[in-house]
Amino acid sequence: MGGGPVTDVSNADRTPAEARALFRDGLVTPTAGWSAGWTQANLLALPRDLAYDFLLFTQRNPKPCPVLDVLDAGQVSGPILDGDIRTDIPAYRVYVDGELTDETTDVTSWWRDDLVAFLIGCSFTFEAALLEQGVPVRHVEQGVNVPMYRTTRRCRDAGAITGPLVVSMRPMPATQVADAVRVTSRYPAVHGAPVHVGDPADLGIADLARPDYGDPVEVRPGEVPVFWACGVTPQAAVVESRPSLAIAHAPGHMLVTDARDSSYLV
Amino acid sequence: MGGGPVTDVSNADRTPAEARALFRDGLVTPTAGWSAGWTQANLLALPRDLAYDFLLFTQRNPKPCPVLDVLDAGQVSGPILDGDIRTDIPAYRVYVDGELTDETTDVTSWWRDDLVAFLIGCSFTFEAALLEQGVPVRHVEQGVNVPMYRTTRRCRDAGAITGPLVVSMRPMPATQVADAVRVTSRYPAVHGAPVHVGDPADLGIADLARPDYGDPVEVRPGEVPVFWACGVTPQAAVVESRPSLAIAHAPGHMLVTDARDSSYLV
Repeated sequence: MGGGPVTDVSNADRTPAEARALFRDGLVTPTAGWSAGWTQANLLALPRDLAYDFLLFTQRNPKPCPVLDVLDAGQVSGPILDGDIRTDIPAYRVYVDGELTDETTDVTSWWRDDLVAFLIGCSFTFEAALLEQGVPVRHVEQGVNVPMYRTTRRCRDAGAITGPLVVSMRPMPATQVADAVRVTSRYPAVHGAPVHVGDPADLGIADLARPDYGDPVEVRPGEVPVFWACGVTPQAAVVESRPSLAIAHAPGHMLVTDARDSSYLV
Repeated sequence: MGGGPVTDVSNADRTPAEARALFRDGLVTPTAGWSAGWTQANLLALPRDLAYDFLLFTQRNPKPCPVLDVLDAGQVSGPILDGDIRTDIPAYRVYVDGELTDETTDVTSWWRDDLVAFLIGCSFTFEAALLEQGVPVRHVEQGVNVPMYRTTRRCRDAGAITGPLVVSMRPMPATQVADAVRVTSRYPAVHGAPVHVGDPADLGIADLARPDYGDPVEVRPGEVPVFWACGVTPQAAVVESRPSLAIAHAPGHMLVTDARDSSYLV
């Protein structure tokens, strides 16, 4: 997955349909900053026989797994996706028995009619609101993917699905933490308020400079790391729970949906 | 189900465990006003083979069906219920093939090990907040059950589950509608903001004086009827969808849980 996000202003102005057409045609890029005002989503597709367990997992862990929509088995589009879930994401990860087996731009050959696709909210939705409040979003400033970390906190199990909480991190001056909490708490459908403010060691994160997914970002002197529940949590659960097949987006390479960010504002 | 709610102030002060013990011992009463500050919940228990469809139905219809917790098949208690779901509600309704078959205070004899119990948020949670804002809650003033109506609006289907939206109604002066919207929108986990303000005919409600569930309340000259999505919606879906067995609370006779209302405030 080469390079940082394409930050050309025109990408922010593209409609979701235009963005998806580019990705369908082979463009591979993190999607931070694309199609401003339109909601981006995490993908996890699982066989139908695990769909109840996973849907219950999302209900029991709403902060990392806020479900925006579910595509029934046999469907590849839906109310917030006038496209094709198998081709319209810039990059996918395919897990077989919990092992990362393929990273590709088109999962048509992997798709099965019994796959149920869960579309899960993404923190990119609230980043525009943070920037409007003057809260820094370092990975956008640096033009890289957001840093994400597996933690030692466990999600609440559901049937066969178990796994750790994954978080994303944004560093900021201590004076702006309250603003960041206030702004993001108004978006419960896209991870909501932070799950942790401060010492990474409390989450079992040994080194902020070595994220488990995405890229490291600069933490300046006096800045506080602020952690939000992350939509990569389902992929960490896949690795532990070992379903026969799971198809996900590549971290940071999201589905650009036809839903507006404003529809998720409380 | 005789009479109005018991409005003795001591009922508001009872702990959830105390309230449930009274109901378990046979007290039958609507629960509005009981155990102030503690969350009340709607119940729908369904066989395991319908659990995915129903959980997806709740995900697709979050305003009428905000899930607070799910008790796995074989469980009768859980994190927000340190008790027994089969006995601790003041009154139950049992549906067989979609037909209301029994109304009883104890469903132990009906219970099966494959039943999954869904606990769904209830608008009683935000009524205290409305009263604090000076917004009238007429059915509490009148000491009756809240009026509820089946509407001509359809819920979004999920597999075998289909049904109409059911709403509860609270009349108020036009000057207080905005306050009511503002206050309740902060409680998305318990139905959130109203779904309709004004003309009942738009919802297919012919006569406010003849609710489908609960009791009629006075609508004074100049008052506006305000409608919220209602947790009886799952029971209307049961009537249409005809599962082999479904066990629900009797409307207005809720489960008093061990969760605090404040935990559902955004």
